[in-house]
Amino acid sequence: MPENAFGLLPPPRGASAEIDCLFYFRLIIFRIMVRAKSVHYVLQRRYGEARVPKLYLGVDGGGTNCRVRLADENLKTLAEATNGRSNLQLEDGDPAYRSIMDGTRQVFEKAGIDYAETANTYACFGMAGARLISARDEFEARDWPFARVKVYDDIDIARAGAHEGEDGAVIIVGTGSAGLALVGEERHQVGGWGFPVGDQMSGAILGRELARITVEAHDGFFDPTPLTQAVLERLGGDLDTLMDWSFKAEPADFGSLMPLFIEYYEKGDPIARKLMDLQLSYVDAYVSWFKRRGVEKMAVVGGFGRRLNPLFVERYGSFIVDPRSEPLHGAVLLAHQHFANA
Amino acid sequence: MPENAFGLLPPPRGASAEIDCLFYFRLIIFRIMVRAKSVHYVLQRRYGEARVPKLYLGVDGGGTNCRVRLADENLKTLAEATNGRSNLQLEDGDPAYRSIMDGTRQVFEKAGIDYAETANTYACFGMAGARLISARDEFEARDWPFARVKVYDDIDIARAGAHEGEDGAVIIVGTGSAGLALVGEERHQVGGWGFPVGDQMSGAILGRELARITVEAHDGFFDPTPLTQAVLERLGGDLDTLMDWSFKAEPADFGSLMPLFIEYYEKGDPIARKLMDLQLSYVDAYVSWFKRRGVEKMAVVGGFGRRLNPLFVERYGSFIVDPRSEPLHGAVLLAHQHFANA
Repeated sequence: MPENAFGLLPPPRGASAEIDCLFYFRLIIFRIMVRAKSVHYVLQRRYGEARVPKLYLGVDGGGTNCRVRLADENLKTLAEATNGRSNLQLEDGDPAYRSIMDGTRQVFEKAGIDYAETANTYACFGMAGARLISARDEFEARDWPFARVKVYDDIDIARAGAHEGEDGAVIIVGTGSAGLALVGEERHQVGGWGFPVGDQMSGAILGRELARITVEAHDGFFDPTPLTQAVLERLGGDLDTLMDWSFKAEPADFGSLMPLFIEYYEKGDPIARKLMDLQLSYVDAYVSWFKRRGVEKMAVVGGFGRRLNPLFVERYGSFIVDPRSEPLHGAVLLAHQHFANA
Repeated sequence: MPENAFGLLPPPRGASAEIDCLFYFRLIIFRIMVRAKSVHYVLQRRYGEARVPKLYLGVDGGGTNCRVRLADENLKTLAEATNGRSNLQLEDGDPAYRSIMDGTRQVFEKAGIDYAETANTYACFGMAGARLISARDEFEARDWPFARVKVYDDIDIARAGAHEGEDGAVIIVGTGSAGLALVGEERHQVGGWGFPVGDQMSGAILGRELARITVEAHDGFFDPTPLTQAVLERLGGDLDTLMDWSFKAEPADFGSLMPLFIEYYEKGDPIARKLMDLQLSYVDAYVSWFKRRGVEKMAVVGGFGRRLNPLFVERYGSFIVDPRSEPLHGAVLLAHQHFANA
């Protein structure tokens, strides 16, 4: 953008004092407007087609890490960064705030763009632990450097990425679990109520069930199987140690039993098969729920879910589609959808 | 006991210096033996029938309060006291230690017996959170004023009280759950592995299941019932508030839904009936487990369990017996059994 577009060049030599006055008056007003961050709006109003290109920033804020992507107006990625955990339920969102602020500085530096351009950047965050509207609103109201910010639940960016903005449902099946569909203009959300009373399809809930069944088998309620023996071994070798572990276990610790579970499922272990039936019954409930709302396709995201995807294809046929893009792209897409006309 | 029985009266006037020496020598030795707390043993050995009567102290150390009872040699109660929580899992047993020490001072004062008589007192503690042998051993090794101490799991004193020392099984069905049987000399323990991976029959586990089903019903997986509506109302009126509650809920908070559950069960609520079937299936598993080990009678203790007892009588007939005494009496009984010949 040429500097004189701002009216900031000194007036031509020999001009009158009135012109001088006018110049400095305009300079002062302009500085005030820069401070008020409204300069882009003014430039657009005044110079029409010569408007400043926008930047888009997407965040995939998960429980274990936080990915940040900076994209140009055509949604081409300029830079990416990964930082620490960013679940909004953790410490009132403080770690999430730090992760996003650090990630922002990193992507601007990597892309070679001045940090001040954050004022021209439109951001969308998809955050774990953002099921509560109040949590999203509070996080959105923090002190951000961006032109605008929109905070979503992490399932929104997963869905937007999986169907690249088109209609369709997504289920997250990872440490936690949740579902979301878009049908026409309508958003249908289900699950995602967390480990204590929700997350039916999650690796955490199935892992806890596996630990519980292991205790029951080795307490003598029914016969241990190779899977329960492997779980007992993994968790310390006896029930006292397993109990001790269970009191400290986080959802992710229960979820970490899933590779073992799948290994023994593939070997035909009877308890693994029983637990897989339970797992599929939960997914059945989600599929029926979506179909009753007119959903025609569903993608599965999350580590445990991707591992189970072949079973889902077998069970639900062409209703299952592969996710087209990852959640981080979904975040950038949503930022564009939301703010392209801002 | 006459003072001269100890040989502590001064020698008769006019006796020789040797007799003086002998007297003081015996006095010094006696003092040393008192300090070594072995005086009673010595007195019994030396004076036979003139032995010091023992005292017994029983403790029922629960998660919310700690009851202490002092009894004489015939197990007649001399005094009782109640103090704070005493689960061994809490703060490494510090609150439990304080509760028992305070309770001990209180019962000796109430009974009008000198605190020094603790050295002649044989104690048995039945402690919540004492499933782990290491936790019991550590607690037993603390600095106690008693002649001897034996620490049990709380289910042991419940069982001893329920059958007044005879053979038989007991299940605790309260906030947590566990089972124990005595058959001949053999002790058969099952369950009691805590909220995360055990406690199948507990009000906490059933309450969590009730909260989960409430979320599922109001998320649209199936039709809400009057019970799920009442639970939703109780837990804040919407799923956002319920989820918020669930992240902070302790086992006792889930268990506190049980009176509501029973109320709607009696009204014939379909989800209450489904959950009661689940509850009874867990109890079935315990009953079968005991019967396979030759158990002939079972008593049920704990608040939720006592409430369900009529259903158990209906289902298991004369296998179910009423508990004959409470756990605190069981603690005194076990102290007597364990230390009567000490």
